[in-house]
Amino acid sequence: MTAHSHRLPNGLTIAVEPMDGVETLAVGLYADVGSRSEPEGLSGLAHMVEHMVFKGAGSRDARAIAEAVEDRGGSLNAWTARDHTVFHARLLAGDLQLGLDIIADLVRASHFDAEELERERQVVLAELGEARDTPDDIIFDHLSAVAFGGQSLGLPVLGSEASIAAIDVPAMKSWIADQYHPSRLVIAAAGKVDEEELLRLVEARFGDLEVAPVKPMASAIFKPGTHHDRRRFDQLHLAFAYPAPGYRDADLHAMSLFASVAGGGMSSRLFQELREQRGLAYSVYAWAQPFADTGMLGVYCAAQRAASGNAYKLAEEVLARTADTLDDAELARAKAQAKAGLLMGLESVATRCDHLARQLQIHGRIITPVESVEQIESVTIADARRAGQSALAGPKALATVGGTLAKAA
Amino acid sequence: MTAHSHRLPNGLTIAVEPMDGVETLAVGLYADVGSRSEPEGLSGLAHMVEHMVFKGAGSRDARAIAEAVEDRGGSLNAWTARDHTVFHARLLAGDLQLGLDIIADLVRASHFDAEELERERQVVLAELGEARDTPDDIIFDHLSAVAFGGQSLGLPVLGSEASIAAIDVPAMKSWIADQYHPSRLVIAAAGKVDEEELLRLVEARFGDLEVAPVKPMASAIFKPGTHHDRRRFDQLHLAFAYPAPGYRDADLHAMSLFASVAGGGMSSRLFQELREQRGLAYSVYAWAQPFADTGMLGVYCAAQRAASGNAYKLAEEVLARTADTLDDAELARAKAQAKAGLLMGLESVATRCDHLARQLQIHGRIITPVESVEQIESVTIADARRAGQSALAGPKALATVGGTLAKAA
Repeated sequence: MTAHSHRLPNGLTIAVEPMDGVETLAVGLYADVGSRSEPEGLSGLAHMVEHMVFKGAGSRDARAIAEAVEDRGGSLNAWTARDHTVFHARLLAGDLQLGLDIIADLVRASHFDAEELERERQVVLAELGEARDTPDDIIFDHLSAVAFGGQSLGLPVLGSEASIAAIDVPAMKSWIADQYHPSRLVIAAAGKVDEEELLRLVEARFGDLEVAPVKPMASAIFKPGTHHDRRRFDQLHLAFAYPAPGYRDADLHAMSLFASVAGGGMSSRLFQELREQRGLAYSVYAWAQPFADTGMLGVYCAAQRAASGNAYKLAEEVLARTADTLDDAELARAKAQAKAGLLMGLESVATRCDHLARQLQIHGRIITPVESVEQIESVTIADARRAGQSALAGPKALATVGGTLAKAA
Repeated sequence: MTAHSHRLPNGLTIAVEPMDGVETLAVGLYADVGSRSEPEGLSGLAHMVEHMVFKGAGSRDARAIAEAVEDRGGSLNAWTARDHTVFHARLLAGDLQLGLDIIADLVRASHFDAEELERERQVVLAELGEARDTPDDIIFDHLSAVAFGGQSLGLPVLGSEASIAAIDVPAMKSWIADQYHPSRLVIAAAGKVDEEELLRLVEARFGDLEVAPVKPMASAIFKPGTHHDRRRFDQLHLAFAYPAPGYRDADLHAMSLFASVAGGGMSSRLFQELREQRGLAYSVYAWAQPFADTGMLGVYCAAQRAASGNAYKLAEEVLARTADTLDDAELARAKAQAKAGLLMGLESVATRCDHLARQLQIHGRIITPVESVEQIESVTIADARRAGQSALAGPKALATVGGTLAKAA
């Protein structure tokens, strides 16, 4: 374990972990800003900016950006979430500078050409169409829209036809200028990287970013409600959720372990009771998703239409029973899963890079695997049950895709 | 590179690669048999067997199988393809024996309980429903059904309602008895594993499997044709394909590099021309998929309905132009991508395990990374162009989901 973090005078933080026995590296810029911070009426702006920076930046057009990285066997990736945005490169050892050059161009010297924007709008509309064609993708947008209705956290990352149409070049330029402040940026690298070289390269490319204040965000309020997407699909897809701890909440590990016991693997209660014992579904699982100030404990299930009412009723019962009766063996198993997952993640250059960056963003420091394991180990049965009970006592959001639920028998 | 292979007297082969710097392992049984070998009328049998073995095997019921592995932080996975079936475990170091005990039970001592089969039939029907609800999943079944119409290679892995209903316990038992011959099985392990221990454990669990002759398979014939799935979706999903080299074909690398230049990454021609320059699609890519005796060169694209005719026409033109004009820089880039992909894959315990097993299945020996790189390097421009030209000269299969193609402008 040789992970280190550094902070430039302007507040930008750097995380690095050189790894033995690998010949590749991952490097990324992680911005602590996502769709949740978008101005009203411009839902989808953060995501459009993430697309548009690839259409030309610095001395390169779209093709030259792609070729520069792919010529070296590398790949570029980027994604926008509700509370963060990532620009990421996977490269061979020796190409760290190339990766940082491109990433710095993307976020600091993008062209934002108006003609390119018109074309990219079509691409994003196609992306939106693909998401709508994928029930187990779009259902989570429906669920967020219910749970965080009327709030920016409830809006879809991709935006809507109307909000995508409203995005223009000035809005994109303001987005970068207003949001990409150094205190909100983490540059992380893992794999075959040299720490001194990384620091030098980052300092040269980002050291002059000007300090600016970051506006505090309004807290989100989780609301009860239901949304039915009545388009016809073969299965009835359903997802429901309750409020859960945020990233920095002391109960986060307890909540994650609860979700794991309830629906985290083949031995989980939902898998065993809905799928193995009753044959009600192929896909069924629970998850805990934290945000800065709140989170979601949720269940997803795709059931045959006629069985959907029974599947929903049983899933609710399983959650409630788990909160009351989660036992020693189950908690021990969930802890073993969490610890092994951590260890397996550490073996991946890309996962390790993401992990370091997220820790700096959330906690402002690197949490060692030993410390993470201690946090997992310290959760008691009482903690895990209480986390579940407290979530289930809150409001419930429900979304379906493929119609409404059948009556439960 | 310390990969080794071994062969038991009954013909079962073993591949192992101990890796430094990791604390986990992957172990799997790779059977060189999949849906393609199913008896007539029982499409979906191989996949149902893959499901049913988890419902009880050896001394364990379904829950006990899941708990045994997940108690240790591990996970089990299995998948069925047209020409192979895999049972796979990800485990922490020290749990190799547990993994092999479970895998041996799954394929040698499954209960195949008739009552469990009735429940699992419902689960598989739900899985089929989910596949139908996912255009970019089901479209590849449609495409195979066109290209290999009337042949077992053209039937879907999951089967149909009718064929799933026809599967019974005797058919499942015969499937294992008739198909899981030692000469068709590879056990592979990678990560923190001890080679001697692996050999000893495999010998004890599989050494007594009886030798049996393997029936040769009829060669598949690629046919032209079109299938439109007219259900309503937001996008028009389209996929088309041509015959391509099989696994052992000398032209396989040339074909893969051609597919990479045509539609393998952000710098590929399809991505640049359809998405970047024309805004016709969000997802567009080409792939080369080899089977034992034949293969597919294909393109997938999801376009807005009105643009779908133009997208299809342009994609065809791009393929044809690539076959005539693929150049030095493009070939060099595709080679760099292939080599870097190889290197990145080698850093993953699970990928390395899969890789070793597939090499033994296909080539009967382990191909070193150096040798793979040499094969990639040896492809000339003439080879890559000829591979493309020769595929495009063959019959074409086309499938759409979401209706028929719009007229091209």
